[in-house]
Amino acid sequence: MIVKLKRGIEDKNAKELIKWLENQGLEVQPTIGKTYTILGLVGDTASIAMNSVKAFEVVDSVTRIQEPYKSANKKLHPTPSVVDVGGVKIGGGHFAVMAGPCSVESKEQVLEIARAVKASGANLLRGGAFKPRTSPYSFQGMGNEGIEILLEAKKETGLPIVSEIMDIEDLPFFEEVDMLQVGARNMQNFAMLKKLGQIDKPILLKRGLSATYEEWIMSAEYIMAGGNKNVILCERGIRTFETGIRNVLDITAVPYLREKTHLPIIIDPSHASGMWEMVEPLSIAATAIGADGLLIEVHNDPERALCDGPQSLKPSKFDRLMKEIALVRNTVNEIGEMKSEKSH
Amino acid sequence: MIVKLKRGIEDKNAKELIKWLENQGLEVQPTIGKTYTILGLVGDTASIAMNSVKAFEVVDSVTRIQEPYKSANKKLHPTPSVVDVGGVKIGGGHFAVMAGPCSVESKEQVLEIARAVKASGANLLRGGAFKPRTSPYSFQGMGNEGIEILLEAKKETGLPIVSEIMDIEDLPFFEEVDMLQVGARNMQNFAMLKKLGQIDKPILLKRGLSATYEEWIMSAEYIMAGGNKNVILCERGIRTFETGIRNVLDITAVPYLREKTHLPIIIDPSHASGMWEMVEPLSIAATAIGADGLLIEVHNDPERALCDGPQSLKPSKFDRLMKEIALVRNTVNEIGEMKSEKSH
Amino acid sequence: MIVKLKRGIEDKNAKELIKWLENQGLEVQPTIGKTYTILGLVGDTASIAMNSVKAFEVVDSVTRIQEPYKSANKKLHPTPSVVDVGGVKIGGGHFAVMAGPCSVESKEQVLEIARAVKASGANLLRGGAFKPRTSPYSFQGMGNEGIEILLEAKKETGLPIVSEIMDIEDLPFFEEVDMLQVGARNMQNFAMLKKLGQIDKPILLKRGLSATYEEWIMSAEYIMAGGNKNVILCERGIRTFETGIRNVLDITAVPYLREKTHLPIIIDPSHASGMWEMVEPLSIAATAIGADGLLIEVHNDPERALCDGPQSLKPSKFDRLMKEIALVRNTVNEIGEMKSEKSH
Amino acid sequence: MIVKLKRGIEDKNAKELIKWLENQGLEVQPTIGKTYTILGLVGDTASIAMNSVKAFEVVDSVTRIQEPYKSANKKLHPTPSVVDVGGVKIGGGHFAVMAGPCSVESKEQVLEIARAVKASGANLLRGGAFKPRTSPYSFQGMGNEGIEILLEAKKETGLPIVSEIMDIEDLPFFEEVDMLQVGARNMQNFAMLKKLGQIDKPILLKRGLSATYEEWIMSAEYIMAGGNKNVILCERGIRTFETGIRNVLDITAVPYLREKTHLPIIIDPSHASGMWEMVEPLSIAATAIGADGLLIEVHNDPERALCDGPQSLKPSKFDRLMKEIALVRNTVNEIGEMKSEKSH
Repeated sequence: MIVKLKRGIEDKNAKELIKWLENQGLEVQPTIGKTYTILGLVGDTASIAMNSVKAFEVVDSVTRIQEPYKSANKKLHPTPSVVDVGGVKIGGGHFAVMAGPCSVESKEQVLEIARAVKASGANLLRGGAFKPRTSPYSFQGMGNEGIEILLEAKKETGLPIVSEIMDIEDLPFFEEVDMLQVGARNMQNFAMLKKLGQIDKPILLKRGLSATYEEWIMSAEYIMAGGNKNVILCERGIRTFETGIRNVLDITAVPYLREKTHLPIIIDPSHASGMWEMVEPLSIAATAIGADGLLIEVHNDPERALCDGPQSLKPSKFDRLMKEIALVRNTVNEIGEMKSEKSH
Repeated sequence: MIVKLKRGIEDKNAKELIKWLENQGLEVQPTIGKTYTILGLVGDTASIAMNSVKAFEVVDSVTRIQEPYKSANKKLHPTPSVVDVGGVKIGGGHFAVMAGPCSVESKEQVLEIARAVKASGANLLRGGAFKPRTSPYSFQGMGNEGIEILLEAKKETGLPIVSEIMDIEDLPFFEEVDMLQVGARNMQNFAMLKKLGQIDKPILLKRGLSATYEEWIMSAEYIMAGGNKNVILCERGIRTFETGIRNVLDITAVPYLREKTHLPIIIDPSHASGMWEMVEPLSIAATAIGADGLLIEVHNDPERALCDGPQSLKPSKFDRLMKEIALVRNTVNEIGEMKSEKSH
Repeated sequence: MIVKLKRGIEDKNAKELIKWLENQGLEVQPTIGKTYTILGLVGDTASIAMNSVKAFEVVDSVTRIQEPYKSANKKLHPTPSVVDVGGVKIGGGHFAVMAGPCSVESKEQVLEIARAVKASGANLLRGGAFKPRTSPYSFQGMGNEGIEILLEAKKETGLPIVSEIMDIEDLPFFEEVDMLQVGARNMQNFAMLKKLGQIDKPILLKRGLSATYEEWIMSAEYIMAGGNKNVILCERGIRTFETGIRNVLDITAVPYLREKTHLPIIIDPSHASGMWEMVEPLSIAATAIGADGLLIEVHNDPERALCDGPQSLKPSKFDRLMKEIALVRNTVNEIGEMKSEKSH
Repeated sequence: MIVKLKRGIEDKNAKELIKWLENQGLEVQPTIGKTYTILGLVGDTASIAMNSVKAFEVVDSVTRIQEPYKSANKKLHPTPSVVDVGGVKIGGGHFAVMAGPCSVESKEQVLEIARAVKASGANLLRGGAFKPRTSPYSFQGMGNEGIEILLEAKKETGLPIVSEIMDIEDLPFFEEVDMLQVGARNMQNFAMLKKLGQIDKPILLKRGLSATYEEWIMSAEYIMAGGNKNVILCERGIRTFETGIRNVLDITAVPYLREKTHLPIIIDPSHASGMWEMVEPLSIAATAIGADGLLIEVHNDPERALCDGPQSLKPSKFDRLMKEIALVRNTVNEIGEMKSEKSH
């Protein structure tokens, strides 16, 4: 951590700050410039709040140079994490596609979609039983009953299931759900994150609409600090000034986070764009850049979907997409081999 | 609602859409242009999800022209709401200042600050017992014990209290708290909003970091739809590209929301800027533009504050600010009188 | 164009608006709802400014449903444009890589890089002679002399050259330059765009830092309206709240713009991220999603580069990247064939 | 400037960097931590590009702690600048209102508006002759002829005039114009900024749509570095995710820039919101927070305005606003006196 002091301050006040910093267990190394003095802090600064330092009147600015996360930090855990979701491995070279309807609407619907996506090669079934809707007057999901339907589809197809939890009080309903999704709007619902740290189920943590990479990793850290290390990050588009599409898929998140964390990273092209026509090209780009998986909305009858129909693929389109993704995965592997040859 | 159809579609498919719309209880009035056909929908479109319409393949785009909110809508409830918080009125010409520490740290601290802000003219005491922190390793607040301390300060000073609720399970601790704050990061925690709609305590609803006006009002609508009409909106800065300050205070929210909703609107200049030097000018601007109140962080020893010290005013500075605000309020009233004279 | 009228307005005023609209050559088709009246406008609305309509007091809002661009519009010109840059074709299936140093620093430097990128398979040489720098105290480029050096490299290697023009008065220096680049900061320098519409050289139009798709296409339209149809769009990252990377590469721009315009679209992964480590994965994603080309910074000695060293690849890394891109292009072609078989 | 080195680097490479830094005339003071080594750089770092340092492979990150601007820097020039525009002083306690039509449309229109705004107390006349329009098919302004009309209005009313320059080649037409406006879209048209540094006319520099405070000041620095110190900054709203209003007026810019630069800062509430209903409240807030002036669009017939009618005030509304502003200015002065008494 670097602390820049204001100009023309009294020695007494600077010393008081230095003493306080040393009391926090840090070593203080000053650099005295012509116009500015800076203090380099050596030690474990992850638990020091930047704001506590900034609050000293002699302080002009504070810059963190060490990441504030530990469990999720690649520097401390260099091996890529592999998360096991109901027998399906994700991360560390294991690629998985999670497909299914935005919301569970009926048993027939879910079974039909589940069979279709399984036949096309999907690894997990996704479906929303509890739905986060901007309006209280929109369909809020089938709730517990929706979970029951997903479990039936799991029983029949063998696909592990992923579903969003919106209220920690609903946790008992999720006992047999294989992975719990935390939605973008709950990414910083810290009360819920802490409780999810107490269980051992895999958590799919979606990025908040305007969350920075660091905030996102810190939310994973909340879960991991509680003991649950099974976290998968999911990029789903960020909010910008652009009005042509719903959200901008931040594809750079994949290579950037690879350098910062060992956690698997998957991409949700359906929510990002909000348009089914974009799902195919974005899935291809996400696969090519090396994501650990995809989360894709598939609906047997998008026009009758109770939510987010415009971004859902029909099963036939999903089937073709899976073939395309297979081709891209081959290329990703070829490039990987080319690189490892080079380095030998 | 306006539905624009794609070009070159089959009549049969357009008719199917029209039939579906009419089944939703809407009247459909088409406009046939040379290059496009549009459908004007007449009726109660608030409960129709735009996405359900967009999902029809013949649809190019959908534009809502009626607001999707009802209880919060000024057009349906033109009189400004006045919310009573422990005897203090807010809204409809009643201006209130809520002041106090970012987090409750000790009984001595809170009592000292409470006495000081009361002496300066504050109307409510604010203080955080449960704290939303980006890092799991930062101080998380004193919890229930913090609430107890706030209640003691209330008892001594008579100031009603406002404190943030992060987990609905903590609700029993808030029984004697006068107003519950929903933080920016929980603005779309719909599970919590629904439950807050079941109680009758005033709710201070902060705007999410990148929430649009409409999303923000829809979150108020979630609470109001449950029966709780005592909602106050609080603008606290939005996230942008600017790195010089923490957030950009969106002062336009005040006059803009005045046209859209009857709910009171207050401003939090402390969180917006994150710098105490900005709190004074931003408070003056917020008062001048006609906000219904201010939420200001005051700390007796900002350098020792366990959170957000840099944005806290010392009691002496707060005292001077209250005098300045009084001058600005006078001017606001003079301008109001000038206008009402004109219109007579 | 859809015009929504305010409620409770006088008939007389509505009629005045309708008359004005008809005088603009438009046919007006009203839809009268219970709470709102809307006017559907039929005809050529591209030349009607939305603001002129909004200025009528009876108007509540105006929505455009027809794109405001013509020459760049895919609906009017469905065949993909192929732009010829000094004999190299770009667009309509023709993929091109433009590589070279951020700024021209010396003859030796440029010749060394030009030879290297040619050997690796680059199709064009890019290099900055006039440099847009945030600070007036930074190196501003070699100017005219830099152009001379690029022309020598062109002579030796046969690679057509691309260079940025910052001041239309410098146009004479660019006589033998094959393509003129308009930088992000000049995307809405309308005076320059108009003058570039008067010449017939290909123009590489970079997207502004926070330009919407529509504004970007409208800037292309400025050039095309003057008669110069040789425009190539270049996505180079947009400005967001994220501070971990310089800009967010908006990969969705490629499939989105494919639906809107016939102009070729290329990607600049170097400026987007500002980090050479990101250039490889972003280039792969951009190629996979179907971009018409890439603009990549290559420098023989990034540590000594006078500008933007951190985002430049060394020639050896660029060479490997070109091999990877070739593999990805094969996959893109395979996918294309698979699709065209399907549709037969 | 603070340079953080990567971990596990070779001594030789670190020494090479240090030598390079010393060759730039800087003193290097290292701080060696357990996990990181940082270098504090002492000396004039304003002319060192951060990217040149970042390009060294041993460097992890670079943080600037000294502002990169000099002429505009308040630390080096603590007295507020007062800019004289045709006899009207702006800055350092001098408040000025510039009013007039978005675009010059006819002699009658301009004279009528000029007389009206003068009668209401405006200090300068603003009007657009050369108009930056998103579409090439929109009215582009009357050009030179428009300037002539403004000069006639100046002659009759005595009000100095302000008008936008879009093309430096038009400079001869502006000979008698009192202040040249640089529009938001040209804020980083560095070629034009350099040339405006060569003249001695006051320049009104609008903030770019997504320009940071530092970039904005650096654009002022471009003009000042050429010798022209008469620069006034104008905040006109920034681009965000919000779609309810056109731009978000960043009122914090006023107190923030006061700490960084001695240049006057004015506010344009008309362009920010794009809605005339917002102009009054935003003007009051801007005056209250201590801006040095306002730029307000006034039109005698907004419904017939050839551009930006919806954001223009009618003269009668402007007249009332001027009375309100006078009241607010009184309060600002009272607060100022209260403060200066305190400090005596």
